[in-house]
Amino acid sequence: MRKKKPRNRSRLISAAMGKLACDLTIRNVQFFNVFTGEIYAAEVDILDGFVVRVREDGQEAPLPAASVYDGHGCYLIPGFIDTHMHVESTMMIPENLSRAILPWGTTTVCTDPHEIGNVMGIDGVSFMLDNAKLSSLRQYVLAPSCVPSVPGKESTGAVFTAKEVADMLDMDDIVGIAEIMDYVGVIQDSERMHTIIDEGEKRGAFLQGHAPFVTGKDLAAYRLGGPYSDHESGTAEEVSEKLRMGIHVNLRASSLTDDLNNLVDGCRDHLWRDFVSICTDDVHAKDLLTVGHINKVVRKAVNSGLDGREVIKMATLNAAREYQFDDLGAIAPGYIADIQLVQTLDGCRPDAVFVEGKLVAENGVYLGDDKPVGNFTFPNTVNIPQITSPEDFCLRVPDGYQEETIMVNVMSPLASKSSKILRKPVPTRLPVKNGCVDISGDPELVYFCSVNRYGSGSATIAVYRDFGLERGAMATTIAHDSHNLTIAYRDPQDAFLAADALRQCGGGVCAVDEGKLTLLPLPVGGLMSPEPCEVIADQIDAVQSAVNEISGGRLSLLGVAVMSLPVLPSCVITDMGLVDGVTQQFVPVFPD
Amino acid sequence: MRKKKPRNRSRLISAAMGKLACDLTIRNVQFFNVFTGEIYAAEVDILDGFVVRVREDGQEAPLPAASVYDGHGCYLIPGFIDTHMHVESTMMIPENLSRAILPWGTTTVCTDPHEIGNVMGIDGVSFMLDNAKLSSLRQYVLAPSCVPSVPGKESTGAVFTAKEVADMLDMDDIVGIAEIMDYVGVIQDSERMHTIIDEGEKRGAFLQGHAPFVTGKDLAAYRLGGPYSDHESGTAEEVSEKLRMGIHVNLRASSLTDDLNNLVDGCRDHLWRDFVSICTDDVHAKDLLTVGHINKVVRKAVNSGLDGREVIKMATLNAAREYQFDDLGAIAPGYIADIQLVQTLDGCRPDAVFVEGKLVAENGVYLGDDKPVGNFTFPNTVNIPQITSPEDFCLRVPDGYQEETIMVNVMSPLASKSSKILRKPVPTRLPVKNGCVDISGDPELVYFCSVNRYGSGSATIAVYRDFGLERGAMATTIAHDSHNLTIAYRDPQDAFLAADALRQCGGGVCAVDEGKLTLLPLPVGGLMSPEPCEVIADQIDAVQSAVNEISGGRLSLLGVAVMSLPVLPSCVITDMGLVDGVTQQFVPVFPD
Repeated sequence: MRKKKPRNRSRLISAAMGKLACDLTIRNVQFFNVFTGEIYAAEVDILDGFVVRVREDGQEAPLPAASVYDGHGCYLIPGFIDTHMHVESTMMIPENLSRAILPWGTTTVCTDPHEIGNVMGIDGVSFMLDNAKLSSLRQYVLAPSCVPSVPGKESTGAVFTAKEVADMLDMDDIVGIAEIMDYVGVIQDSERMHTIIDEGEKRGAFLQGHAPFVTGKDLAAYRLGGPYSDHESGTAEEVSEKLRMGIHVNLRASSLTDDLNNLVDGCRDHLWRDFVSICTDDVHAKDLLTVGHINKVVRKAVNSGLDGREVIKMATLNAAREYQFDDLGAIAPGYIADIQLVQTLDGCRPDAVFVEGKLVAENGVYLGDDKPVGNFTFPNTVNIPQITSPEDFCLRVPDGYQEETIMVNVMSPLASKSSKILRKPVPTRLPVKNGCVDISGDPELVYFCSVNRYGSGSATIAVYRDFGLERGAMATTIAHDSHNLTIAYRDPQDAFLAADALRQCGGGVCAVDEGKLTLLPLPVGGLMSPEPCEVIADQIDAVQSAVNEISGGRLSLLGVAVMSLPVLPSCVITDMGLVDGVTQQFVPVFPD
Repeated sequence: MRKKKPRNRSRLISAAMGKLACDLTIRNVQFFNVFTGEIYAAEVDILDGFVVRVREDGQEAPLPAASVYDGHGCYLIPGFIDTHMHVESTMMIPENLSRAILPWGTTTVCTDPHEIGNVMGIDGVSFMLDNAKLSSLRQYVLAPSCVPSVPGKESTGAVFTAKEVADMLDMDDIVGIAEIMDYVGVIQDSERMHTIIDEGEKRGAFLQGHAPFVTGKDLAAYRLGGPYSDHESGTAEEVSEKLRMGIHVNLRASSLTDDLNNLVDGCRDHLWRDFVSICTDDVHAKDLLTVGHINKVVRKAVNSGLDGREVIKMATLNAAREYQFDDLGAIAPGYIADIQLVQTLDGCRPDAVFVEGKLVAENGVYLGDDKPVGNFTFPNTVNIPQITSPEDFCLRVPDGYQEETIMVNVMSPLASKSSKILRKPVPTRLPVKNGCVDISGDPELVYFCSVNRYGSGSATIAVYRDFGLERGAMATTIAHDSHNLTIAYRDPQDAFLAADALRQCGGGVCAVDEGKLTLLPLPVGGLMSPEPCEVIADQIDAVQSAVNEISGGRLSLLGVAVMSLPVLPSCVITDMGLVDGVTQQFVPVFPD
């Protein structure tokens, strides 16, 4: 559970009474008060990382502070709090995340390490916690609730039962249970979800929800099952219904989705928005380099018609109260001195950022040391003994099959031309050559393979239509949520080259074009890189360029990463087979 | 600490999903949503005392409930929460308080039993908790923080150190530390207050403040010392300063004070009022019979210019969030079904009140059983062996004193003609007769006596000018905060009669006029009566009439009750002597 920053009350009282000098006074600012909405000239006194006092115009400090920072007339506001994000989505390790987002004014993040949890279990979660401690960014972690996302339909590196969740909740700075995605399990009161939520309730832990498209009686049942927040709304109606039910709504704008205009419509005309906060969920390194973090969402929300003061309150005080953090999200005596100085109240990049009263960024530049990342050794998590030659990527027909063609469940786009993610099996007759299904005659087809990378030896190969890959192979060890090695390819030779490269570097993302490899190594669990944001962004650019070449510009470098998630209303591929996400039944590659 | 109402999540989920019938549906209501401020037609389904679902127009119940209540088009709002009150001030025991205030729509009170705590220590607090459990009203108790109010200057029946406070915090339904009145101790970081607050912080308990007239650096120091709420503001400026500091402000209108107009001025123009709630502090039986409880404060706040929806949110959701009660203060899935049906949103008396989904009052009538109050035996707490005859009430001059007159520190009104509470010693020469000070020649003087009632044998007799008593005696065992037997009298004979009557009945309030006694017995700790509200109100009327007779209508029946509190900026009388509340020094009765 959360370990509050310890405070010496006697010292703080002494400082307020003028018997002890403060460490710092930030002067010459317009103070924005998130309790009252007022703005007034003030100076802020800080000791031991806590706010001692906000002195309004004319109130002298009883003793001068050891140092003074001139705010040059900026607004002084609290640091932003991200109520839900996955560090792994940035491909950075927690320590480098800190360097990347502090300059944007985010000083606290509540993270769900369910990607690394699927790969490495509690060891992975512990790594995230430990590495986060090397950073100035306050990083609270939530215990992943649904590892694996669907039991029995995918192989992961770990399984979290109530026991593991309980163990995590007892660790310092694990503040709750992360997005409870298995909403079907919750509303059907499955034993897995019931017992996991029990552990949270027992400890008074925060229970983070995840309820896309859930409405009416299902939403009531979901709320009754435990979770009291949600960040998955896509429409105004969803936001409105959830708020009416007292569910904390985290307005989300990620690198993947941006429905913020709609979401704002769901709360703009309410009398109160106390239960609205802000989150980024998944945000990419490039965005963090160029457009920002929570401040970006604030800016969008202001552009969608909300008052900037209201949005800043959402991203600070409301977020803190959602988690019942009573020492964060505001600037007042006793609060932790996480502070931004900004020129406008609309999500602009801050001129200065302080964490616990220490200046950590100025004008977009991180001021902390540039020392190499914390010393850690990380095991290679790509364990694929089943892959020994290019032949392992051929789709073999069943033993003894003698015909020249065979019926194959070709995974084809479900309906809409726009979304290529959702798929259904379409039985299609394809030629057989040397005992393998041959797609060379149809340029619309690719092989798609999910290779267990946790040593079990399992793998599934299938055929996909209209995926977008024209030649070569693209591969990744990021494949939600089990993160097995997933490859789309026209040529088994290229697939083998890609697999072998990723095995050697411990995972990552790569493209192969006629034997030429372009690689983004992610040796930390096959998900993250120890490199800083700028380097990762460059590597992403390089792999994306290569993917553009082999897909005619149709595919994103993570195009294969979302084809394996068995909670999607789609037919997906896992290392155990093809899975219908709606019925949760396996679908044979060969229908007969 | 708080023990949450246990819930069977499986049953609640089943009910939402239509697999189990609810206990009750309240239909035909205008639902007022305290999260969003919206009002819309709805039906509310309840099971096991919890809200299962709020169905909006057109949403059918999947299964009909076992019973249906027709709301006749009323607004449906949550039950009110009183964030700070003393049950003892009503002179009722907790069980009867419930009968008196549920019909007004208050369903939860957070009470400070510091009166009974001063008299009987933890036994008294336990009685309040145990007796409260016999009632439908949800009564949370806070551990009294300042017993006695000033150590070493008054004798109480108990002393609470950090040890006792810790023991209380570990009891069920003691949810925090009650009004931390010794603000001087907090800002001077006294060991007593520091160690007591430590016990609260250790447990994450609610730390209730009490900071009248505290401002600027003192207020910051007080907040840093621990407390995060306050109900003692008297002006708009106090409210505003506290809110700016993130202190939860409990707007108070009691039977003793009513500055609500001013208080509302301190928050009306703010953008947000999330940190504002409502409390009654001290409210008398007569008020509870005639004008109401929290609803009365709501009405006044609306009359002072606040939107009724905003005030209802203060008295429900804001109050619950102040205490971090996440299952109270709103009507939504998973919340406890404490509900009022009201015709207007302005503090009117509710047409119906439900606690945990059970109808407890209709049209001002309590519907619970009329069974006699819970069986309890209460010790007689009036232990005054030092009083054996009328002579014990004579003010004797020092042994061997032979003069015919003597200088006496006569306790005289401090300054203003209006307030007779604040006093200062004025040395005055008075006649001596039979070895005693004789006031018979000056009708402006009375004797004033504080008799230790906890068996120590101590007593103080002094002379007061311009108190208002013309003849006879008035006496009470309610005398804040030590509650020693306190008597104002012209005639020692009448004083003895009063003292003897109160000794026999275990305490109370009485008036004696030429040998005629009028008595309000308060056998429960000398503070409370086992009788219901109506009976107490009648007894109060009778004693007040008698007091009117002997004071020419100048005195309230509790006129002597506030002359003993050593935290007042006044010279007060305790069983240990006269005490200057400002210097905390004793003042001799005879100055030479």
